[in-house]
Amino acid sequence: MELSPLQKARYSYEPKLPEILKNDISKIVATEGEVTESVSDQDKIKALFPKTYGMREVSFTLSKDSNKAEKKNVAVILSGGQAPGGHNVITGLYDALKKDNKESTLIGFKNGPSGLLEDKYIEFTDSYIDSFRNTGGFDIIGSGRTKLETEEQFEVAIKVAEKHNLNAIVIIGGDDSNTNAAVLAEYFLEKGSKCQVIGCPKTIDGDLKNDVIEISFGFDTATKTYSELIGNIERDANSAKKYWHFIRVMGRSASHIALECALETQPNICFISEEVEKKNMSLEDIADQVVASVVKRSENGENFGVAIIPEGLIEFVPEVKKLISELNDIMAIDEKEFNELDAWESKYEFMQKKLTLDSFKVFSFLPLEIEKQLLMDRDPHGNVQVSRIETEKLIISIVEKKLADLKKEGKYKGKFSALSHFFGYEGRCAFPSNFDADYCYSLGYNAYMLLREGYTGYISAITNLSKPSKEWKAGGMPIVKMFNLEQRHGKLKPVIKKALVELDGAPFKYFAERRDEWAEKTLYTYPGAIQYYGPESVCDITTRTLALEQGGK
Amino acid sequence: MELSPLQKARYSYEPKLPEILKNDISKIVATEGEVTESVSDQDKIKALFPKTYGMREVSFTLSKDSNKAEKKNVAVILSGGQAPGGHNVITGLYDALKKDNKESTLIGFKNGPSGLLEDKYIEFTDSYIDSFRNTGGFDIIGSGRTKLETEEQFEVAIKVAEKHNLNAIVIIGGDDSNTNAAVLAEYFLEKGSKCQVIGCPKTIDGDLKNDVIEISFGFDTATKTYSELIGNIERDANSAKKYWHFIRVMGRSASHIALECALETQPNICFISEEVEKKNMSLEDIADQVVASVVKRSENGENFGVAIIPEGLIEFVPEVKKLISELNDIMAIDEKEFNELDAWESKYEFMQKKLTLDSFKVFSFLPLEIEKQLLMDRDPHGNVQVSRIETEKLIISIVEKKLADLKKEGKYKGKFSALSHFFGYEGRCAFPSNFDADYCYSLGYNAYMLLREGYTGYISAITNLSKPSKEWKAGGMPIVKMFNLEQRHGKLKPVIKKALVELDGAPFKYFAERRDEWAEKTLYTYPGAIQYYGPESVCDITTRTLALEQGGK
Repeated sequence: MELSPLQKARYSYEPKLPEILKNDISKIVATEGEVTESVSDQDKIKALFPKTYGMREVSFTLSKDSNKAEKKNVAVILSGGQAPGGHNVITGLYDALKKDNKESTLIGFKNGPSGLLEDKYIEFTDSYIDSFRNTGGFDIIGSGRTKLETEEQFEVAIKVAEKHNLNAIVIIGGDDSNTNAAVLAEYFLEKGSKCQVIGCPKTIDGDLKNDVIEISFGFDTATKTYSELIGNIERDANSAKKYWHFIRVMGRSASHIALECALETQPNICFISEEVEKKNMSLEDIADQVVASVVKRSENGENFGVAIIPEGLIEFVPEVKKLISELNDIMAIDEKEFNELDAWESKYEFMQKKLTLDSFKVFSFLPLEIEKQLLMDRDPHGNVQVSRIETEKLIISIVEKKLADLKKEGKYKGKFSALSHFFGYEGRCAFPSNFDADYCYSLGYNAYMLLREGYTGYISAITNLSKPSKEWKAGGMPIVKMFNLEQRHGKLKPVIKKALVELDGAPFKYFAERRDEWAEKTLYTYPGAIQYYGPESVCDITTRTLALEQGGK
Repeated sequence: MELSPLQKARYSYEPKLPEILKNDISKIVATEGEVTESVSDQDKIKALFPKTYGMREVSFTLSKDSNKAEKKNVAVILSGGQAPGGHNVITGLYDALKKDNKESTLIGFKNGPSGLLEDKYIEFTDSYIDSFRNTGGFDIIGSGRTKLETEEQFEVAIKVAEKHNLNAIVIIGGDDSNTNAAVLAEYFLEKGSKCQVIGCPKTIDGDLKNDVIEISFGFDTATKTYSELIGNIERDANSAKKYWHFIRVMGRSASHIALECALETQPNICFISEEVEKKNMSLEDIADQVVASVVKRSENGENFGVAIIPEGLIEFVPEVKKLISELNDIMAIDEKEFNELDAWESKYEFMQKKLTLDSFKVFSFLPLEIEKQLLMDRDPHGNVQVSRIETEKLIISIVEKKLADLKKEGKYKGKFSALSHFFGYEGRCAFPSNFDADYCYSLGYNAYMLLREGYTGYISAITNLSKPSKEWKAGGMPIVKMFNLEQRHGKLKPVIKKALVELDGAPFKYFAERRDEWAEKTLYTYPGAIQYYGPESVCDITTRTLALEQGGK
């Protein structure tokens, strides 16, 4: 394999650790703090987690005595979608483990949790680890989306853990994977297994966040990559002065990515799904907001613009949600009858009869190709595939129609030429920013500290992250502390509460106070490519979201 | 406007000049070399350019005497699509002009050549220039696609030049704009105008290249940006191990961008339009090449991959070219009759009757939605809009069908799940790489040297570019030297010969020798984001194409 100059250079980058973790490992001890409670439903969750409920928060401090290291056998798993920095969690874990005791071993289960169930793994060596330092991707062991959640799976896990004589499994994943890590930890304890389980908070979506986890890793790098591209497109729009660019960015369940990109690039428009839902906005409201900006800017002589659309937007529009749910119900009952209809017109009439008046109004408001997509392109369970809808194209199409109407009425004289983009895969495997490289290495190193001290069911927690890394704090928090009960597939389940964009939070407020001005004027900011070298102000700053959340700008 | 940290940092970057241009301007003199001839059709071109044909090549050297500067009034125009570094051409020109004589003035005609015709301009000041140093985009004065080519336009140009008492106009553009710069220079001389015309070679497409121009500016930065994204997607593919990504990149007339990106990222597949045409490849040949890689990789357990598709590919497929030309001819004659047909089936039968057997075979081989697009989606002249065809999706759809057939025959057992991307606008306005920042600044600075010495009809030429900037050479070349005669709209016209990918050139050969291995194995290279700081090997290296052309690797 031919290595790029940057990859070669990044191998020698030395990730920065929190001050406390720079000490001789044998002299670092865990200090226990408060007993914790789950964020809600305390009694029910306590009953479900008798072994791991109410554990204490942990921080690391320096001791005078040193504490001899035992040999440990540890395994690591990458779970779910890629996020920049995953490799550094593993190199940090490996370095701490080997520094503490050369005899200790680290294995990686391949291609996600299924690697544990199928006992497919590799054992890490110095040279293999070195070839992944500070690089993007999850190719070091691969990842996968198998969920560890059934008792049968847990039984297999116990056997595999015993076979490898594992002291601990470190699971790197998002909210679901960390939820399952806590369940597995409880199960291991219940069955008398010595194998501990430690989680690490990963997801570019940024929705694994709470008073324990300030930011999930990968969010910084991914949003910097999307912001680079959005800024470049803004500059292109402002140079060519003839296109409106509609840019959809990843983030189905929450709009943190869209919001962060908007804070970084100051586009004319950015929708936040959480607000759309809260304000009960219709598709027409969304289109009208775009139209208002297009018309206003056109009056200023600027027939161009940039709009950011979160991937999940359409699923948050209450009227669309209702329509989708009705369509799914109708298909569940009348699919056969529907499938027998040949002509589009008959299918359309069929829906007119079956849908409620309100939902049919929404349906008939959609462009023809989206109507067809909703009815024809269903998943194996017959459900409408709402995630397949290219929301940015849907919005463009509604906006075009509205502008044509305004033109006829003489209320709009401009030109509207729209282009669409989708950014997702472009950012999930970028070389981690210095922030993510440092944060992830620290998370992995710190995960070793937690397992060394015997903790299980904890998430590795590095905090105070808007400050320089030497001021970062290292510790751990019981995963169960982040739990609440939620309906999943018709059953109440204990899960980590997903962090949505808070409409009274500082990042959204900063955006909301400025967006009217951005909608009218051209106030773009061009972040440029992620820099790994150069002035600190350029290469060591993390997200605007985190800065604003922690009282900065 | 809020500036990003990178933009602030880049303001203080000092672009590197060739050694000779670092001297006191008053001591730099032009040394004339050989008398030049146009690359072909010498007699005819000589007759068309009596004033500017056969001028000598120019290089700059140091003199002992100094040569007092006169006040100059200069204008600059940005023409055509954006390319990173355009701002630096202007800052270089401005700095040289002001350094030579503080009284001199530089104006910029706004929004492309139309700014000259409409006399819309701004005069540059220190503070305005400073706010664009080392930034991407053409927003400093805007750009436009108006072509300066008619005698009426030239007459207006003379009047505007006289009004501003212009000593020179610097035109920053691609092959067409530089062609027109030479025609304008000839016209000015013929009419006795003192206004000189100097061109600068711009285009991200890389197709303005010959023995005078080693590389057009912007190609380096744009291909680095696309390669960053392609590399990130490769790493994602190699981590998730479940998608084939088909990535279309800009470059309609030539495949330099696709080739450079392939050299930087080593994808499984990359098509080069020039080869497709030369080898008379059919759409089926193209699909078969993808299928071969998909099947082979699937046998190796790798149901993922990355393919790069040049934007213009489909227009280079001879059978498609023939089909398009027949369709256009049919529409020119029988459009009315065609438009009266209602049902798709009748339209299809109509074409079956009108097309040649071969072309109908190609037509009927296309997926339905592309057939429809070809017949329905025509431009105002009735022509088929071939550039609207999303070639990557067309290829995916043919490949899917072929794989389904192979599966039935038991010859393929893998999974094929394809995603598509298009990268163009993402790279045209990036912050210029150090190479482009230095090169462009030098081009602009050097353009001033040429006009100071009284040259007209010259292109600013900085050469020896694969070496460090201090070894770069500065000079100029008569634009007419690059001319040949080509059919344009049915007339023979003198134009700069467009540089296509040479199939016997070193860059293509390097690729061709390795592509079979790349098609089968996973040998991706991950370039990462453009770096402006850090080790020289990371932040100062230009393209693989140029390195290979100049005998490097």
